[in-house]
Amino acid sequence: MKIAVLPGDGIGTEIVAQAIRVLDALDLPFEMETALVGGAAYEAHGHPLPDATLKLAKEADAVLFGAVGDWKYDKLDRPLRPEQAILGLRKNLGLFANFRPAICYEQLVDASSLKPELIAGLDILIIRELTGDIYFGQPRGRRTAVDGHFPGADEAFDTMRYSRPEVERIARVAFEAARKRSKRVTSVDKANVLETFQFWKDIVTEVGKEYPDVELDHMYVDNAAMQLVKAPKKFDVIVTGNMFGDILSDEAAMLTGSIGMLPSASLNASNQGLYEPSHGSAPDIAGKGVANPLATILSAAMMLRYSLNQEDAAQRIETAVKKVLAQGLRTPDIYSAGTTKVGTVEMGDAVLKALA
Amino acid sequence: MKIAVLPGDGIGTEIVAQAIRVLDALDLPFEMETALVGGAAYEAHGHPLPDATLKLAKEADAVLFGAVGDWKYDKLDRPLRPEQAILGLRKNLGLFANFRPAICYEQLVDASSLKPELIAGLDILIIRELTGDIYFGQPRGRRTAVDGHFPGADEAFDTMRYSRPEVERIARVAFEAARKRSKRVTSVDKANVLETFQFWKDIVTEVGKEYPDVELDHMYVDNAAMQLVKAPKKFDVIVTGNMFGDILSDEAAMLTGSIGMLPSASLNASNQGLYEPSHGSAPDIAGKGVANPLATILSAAMMLRYSLNQEDAAQRIETAVKKVLAQGLRTPDIYSAGTTKVGTVEMGDAVLKALA
Ligand SMILES: CC(C)[C@H](C(=O)O)[C@@H](O)C(=O)O
Ligand SMILES: CC(C)[C@H](C(=O)O)[C@@H](O)C(=O)O
Repeated sequence: MKIAVLPGDGIGTEIVAQAIRVLDALDLPFEMETALVGGAAYEAHGHPLPDATLKLAKEADAVLFGAVGDWKYDKLDRPLRPEQAILGLRKNLGLFANFRPAICYEQLVDASSLKPELIAGLDILIIRELTGDIYFGQPRGRRTAVDGHFPGADEAFDTMRYSRPEVERIARVAFEAARKRSKRVTSVDKANVLETFQFWKDIVTEVGKEYPDVELDHMYVDNAAMQLVKAPKKFDVIVTGNMFGDILSDEAAMLTGSIGMLPSASLNASNQGLYEPSHGSAPDIAGKGVANPLATILSAAMMLRYSLNQEDAAQRIETAVKKVLAQGLRTPDIYSAGTTKVGTVEMGDAVLKALA
Repeated sequence: MKIAVLPGDGIGTEIVAQAIRVLDALDLPFEMETALVGGAAYEAHGHPLPDATLKLAKEADAVLFGAVGDWKYDKLDRPLRPEQAILGLRKNLGLFANFRPAICYEQLVDASSLKPELIAGLDILIIRELTGDIYFGQPRGRRTAVDGHFPGADEAFDTMRYSRPEVERIARVAFEAARKRSKRVTSVDKANVLETFQFWKDIVTEVGKEYPDVELDHMYVDNAAMQLVKAPKKFDVIVTGNMFGDILSDEAAMLTGSIGMLPSASLNASNQGLYEPSHGSAPDIAGKGVANPLATILSAAMMLRYSLNQEDAAQRIETAVKKVLAQGLRTPDIYSAGTTKVGTVEMGDAVLKALA
């Protein structure tokens, strides 16, 4: 079992270090190799995703990823910015299926912006298509407008697109996932405006016929953004495109109030995967030893489950995390009166102890 | 002052009827003419936006619009569906600037999903570009993929695009609006992924230099979807494209918990405008006399302010609406224990009485 470890920037190194301690403690035959990615790789090698890093990731069974990005790289040309590394990894490894759970832990209900009764017990799984849509569609660029409101003016443009097999495979991922949960899929589209998403809706409906035991409904993206606020618990599995998924998965994560707890998995057709916390590199708190390592530790658990076929180990980690929460340990992002504030390493210590 | 009245479908006729009573009571020299739009127009004339309706709207100084749509039209070909009427009106009247206030009324704080301290006093103005972006970009359609993940497969596609003058004019609208408020503009983009929105960001930054008294910041759309949940009151004016604006303005409206109170305005370069409630046609409660007419009545107030140059009358209406809220009158959508539940017409009666 080969794991490529890519800590990245900001708090990335600190939180990944704790996840590695946890993996080490499992006493399983992992081979872990670390490489630079994002801004750190740019500083050292002039590129956010150096060839050696990409090669390592491709050859591994799974990638454990921290976070990338820092304001100081905002002025770089787009291809050199840290976030291109994550787009490059998704594309080159074919990681088309992104799993973004939005779970509200019992003990953290009060961290949410939402009233407790609306958020307690939340358990949504957002499945975002990750290698298609307007993220990668060609052509894109700048040109002189030939029609539209201002022919002759400078314009910029991008192409949104989905092909039938792309939609079919992500739909299947969603229906399969729903079968292991409450058997409900909400497909989010904008079929009333976009050709791409009328096509999406038609294909998801077709694929849905293969899963008569799973209830399928369709929702426009603007309505989904509202229903997530109004009654998030009505959702089970949400499946949507890359762009809408970017927005809705972050909205749902923030609804829980504890984005520092939320892992993610991005898988390809052979279950090779990239695992990363749902939160970012948080340069403002980097190096201070206060970042919450739990989302990364839980990402390692997802890695054990989906790519390394170690369900038992995955559950051991998840149980350990629940235990430290029950003990009242909290990093500052999830701290509330009456609990015990701890730093990144202490939280790692506590998870290790709970594992043992 | 010529007003085209387009009640539309579902609760549209009921709520517009109340707004008209209010306008009539102002005793101003309006000329109002009513026409069919949406599903109602399709039933009568085979098209959701008949030529006569479009002509009436074009010749008017302002359009007072109810709502369109019903599930029963879902199976129609896209060009015949009710919502095409609203897209057609925006395009043909050049209504590029959509104003979507998200305001939380003092008395309705408890209707929100959010904790009171996060939402009380909320007053955001979302300015959504409304005639560009992927809503209208060509080419769009279906074809055989020549590249991408599955060359040779069927695919559907759309074009996102913005030209320089389109971005400049909506940016100016936002900066001007901010000058009359707290002087802060947040431009929402996805410049880290999309050429269109890097261009957008660059141009908004340029235009911002003409408004040194207004503070400008930039936020990615996924982060904006989160920050709206986390700390909505940090925003003043948000300016964004058509697609992102669709999603964020609905999210923000739902955060208030009282979308039945929120008006909207869509303006063109000569301040001709279309005014409509932020909510939809709600076919499930149509005809029952329970719909909240206040968003439509407040839309009429926006119409007086922006297109008809009747600031005093606009304020009279807004004051009257606050008065009925203070009196404790509530339609079912905003009802809570201790207040008085009323229907659509009774709410209209109360506003008329408060006006007098
Ligand atoms: C960094 C950015 C390119 C990325 C995305 O938009 O996909 C991020 O927001 C995410 O969701 O992983
Ligand atoms: C009905 C639909 C085409 C429309 C849009 O997407 O613009 C609606 O959602 C809106 O926001 O007015």
